[in-house]
Amino acid sequence: MATPISLKDLTVDNITENVHVINSQCSNLRIKYILERTVTHLHDLARETRLTTDEWMAAIQFLTRVGQISSDVRQEFILLSDVLGLSLLVDSIDHPKPKGSTEGTVLGPFHTHEAHDAIAGSLISHDPDGEPLLVLCTLKDTNGQPISGAKIDTWETDSKGFYDVQHQDRSGPDGRAILTSDEIGNFWFKAIVPVPYPIPHDGPVGQLLNVLNRHPYRPGHMHFIFKKDGYDPLVTQVYLNAQTPEYDHKLTCIYSALYLKDDPYESADAVFGVKDSLVVQIKKVEDEEMAKKYGVKLRSALLTYDFVLVKEQAAAELRRQKAEEAMAKLGRKIRFIDDLPVPDVD
Amino acid sequence: MATPISLKDLTVDNITENVHVINSQCSNLRIKYILERTVTHLHDLARETRLTTDEWMAAIQFLTRVGQISSDVRQEFILLSDVLGLSLLVDSIDHPKPKGSTEGTVLGPFHTHEAHDAIAGSLISHDPDGEPLLVLCTLKDTNGQPISGAKIDTWETDSKGFYDVQHQDRSGPDGRAILTSDEIGNFWFKAIVPVPYPIPHDGPVGQLLNVLNRHPYRPGHMHFIFKKDGYDPLVTQVYLNAQTPEYDHKLTCIYSALYLKDDPYESADAVFGVKDSLVVQIKKVEDEEMAKKYGVKLRSALLTYDFVLVKEQAAAELRRQKAEEAMAKLGRKIRFIDDLPVPDVD
Repeated sequence: MATPISLKDLTVDNITENVHVINSQCSNLRIKYILERTVTHLHDLARETRLTTDEWMAAIQFLTRVGQISSDVRQEFILLSDVLGLSLLVDSIDHPKPKGSTEGTVLGPFHTHEAHDAIAGSLISHDPDGEPLLVLCTLKDTNGQPISGAKIDTWETDSKGFYDVQHQDRSGPDGRAILTSDEIGNFWFKAIVPVPYPIPHDGPVGQLLNVLNRHPYRPGHMHFIFKKDGYDPLVTQVYLNAQTPEYDHKLTCIYSALYLKDDPYESADAVFGVKDSLVVQIKKVEDEEMAKKYGVKLRSALLTYDFVLVKEQAAAELRRQKAEEAMAKLGRKIRFIDDLPVPDVD
Repeated sequence: MATPISLKDLTVDNITENVHVINSQCSNLRIKYILERTVTHLHDLARETRLTTDEWMAAIQFLTRVGQISSDVRQEFILLSDVLGLSLLVDSIDHPKPKGSTEGTVLGPFHTHEAHDAIAGSLISHDPDGEPLLVLCTLKDTNGQPISGAKIDTWETDSKGFYDVQHQDRSGPDGRAILTSDEIGNFWFKAIVPVPYPIPHDGPVGQLLNVLNRHPYRPGHMHFIFKKDGYDPLVTQVYLNAQTPEYDHKLTCIYSALYLKDDPYESADAVFGVKDSLVVQIKKVEDEEMAKKYGVKLRSALLTYDFVLVKEQAAAELRRQKAEEAMAKLGRKIRFIDDLPVPDVD
């Protein structure tokens, strides 16, 4: 417990340490550490930029608008975190992936808890304008053993680039479902070929992107959340590499060839989520047997992917190892509480 | 203009520089600098704390609640800035005060634009339970010359510690007015003795204070904003030092003697705004002539204060000098645009 001090006559130079002293009354060591770092960075930001009252007020009003436009179906603070690269960073810190396992990425603000359980082969998107897509996946552990009985929460936009919740007149969930992997670790469903889309940019985050001269586009992708006891929760997205000649026409219309080729959009996801290991080539169902087996038309679009999940214990060990390395690099003496670092003070 | 780079496969270690490259497309150098520092600090915060997805989500939800509880009459983000010491810091950076001039402090979230112009001697608070207070002030420049024709926007709570806007059934502004200094730089009005009060703590900021084991109290005070062409805008508050024996009884009831004496509240303003030079002793109108002149009862509470405003030019010079000193200390090469620092890159 810190010595009580007089909180009067605080200045540019001593306010930070004084706020720390008052906040050190917090009994939760983890919250105390996060607050201590938050206040330090917030104050350093103001000092380094010589932030003006007008700029501070503009920030206050911006953040207020971000909160106020948020609703049950729109999370503008997640969007803000996404476009500042924070979401991807936090995922990378909290879910480090050992070599050979499927990488994670940003969740995005459009996951809901409305998706219904669906049996293998279900059609999860009912947009008649969507290009039908057969999705065939396998799910294994890092030893190559199939993972059965895992829940796979998947979601994507409609053919216009909108998630179900972005339609005010929607009657229920669409473009999303919860699958279950079978006894040999497979799961499959019918969806539509994802399209690139701008993140919602009619609000404060869109205004920010505009001021920064940044575009709001994301490459077409499909989201997946895997849940299975004993495995590290994995949030990932399969990004569609749309270079397949058969899809050039469609892609030229919907993805726009401009950013699929040499356009900076190709490798310029507005929310920094793309990883090469998650970029897949759209194929086609070329085999009549296969088309029959899965109940799709010959030459339907086909997406296949082999997901590899890491065990919770292995992920926790890697997370801790990386935390220890990072803290050592910072020269900070720490200890762990519930596997999370806090300063080690005598 | 930075070279376009591939925004794929970003990691804990390289995401920050990549976000900077994308944001460097911003043509406003000041915004670009503030964003660069914001992203760096935000990312460092996540890296240093090894922020988890759950903690990130808790922060997202907290900030969303802060935005959503804000309204025309409640500004929870200002409150958050206040309790983290940021508001006082920004005022100190943006409005440095040369020796001999009245110091500034936090504005607080309860200033409105509803106050009416009031003539000298007006009663600005109509709370029948308030202890009547005569306020006699002078307004001078740093050379001791009276400042006439300045607008003085003043506001205070009622006797229960609530500002007018905190009452849902209010019929109009109360406890606030805009005075004008006369030809010899005086202004005076009738108000009530301010009382200490908790900042609104039924929302997310109150929950934060609770987690931090902090109290939400502010010492009784009265706000003043001065406006006069050619002078640096001064936001200040006169804090009431309530040690006068005559008021002990009242103060014991309303201020609570606990924190007026050795209680940690005495020098523990929840928003860090108190400065010794702004702490005043409540006096009494002892003179019958004076009571008659100002139309108050003998032994009425009396607050007197001599405000000294600094010229805009002098404030700007001091601000710039301090910015240059701070940047030199940081070892940063800067240049000024509209008197605000931005990095100096060749």
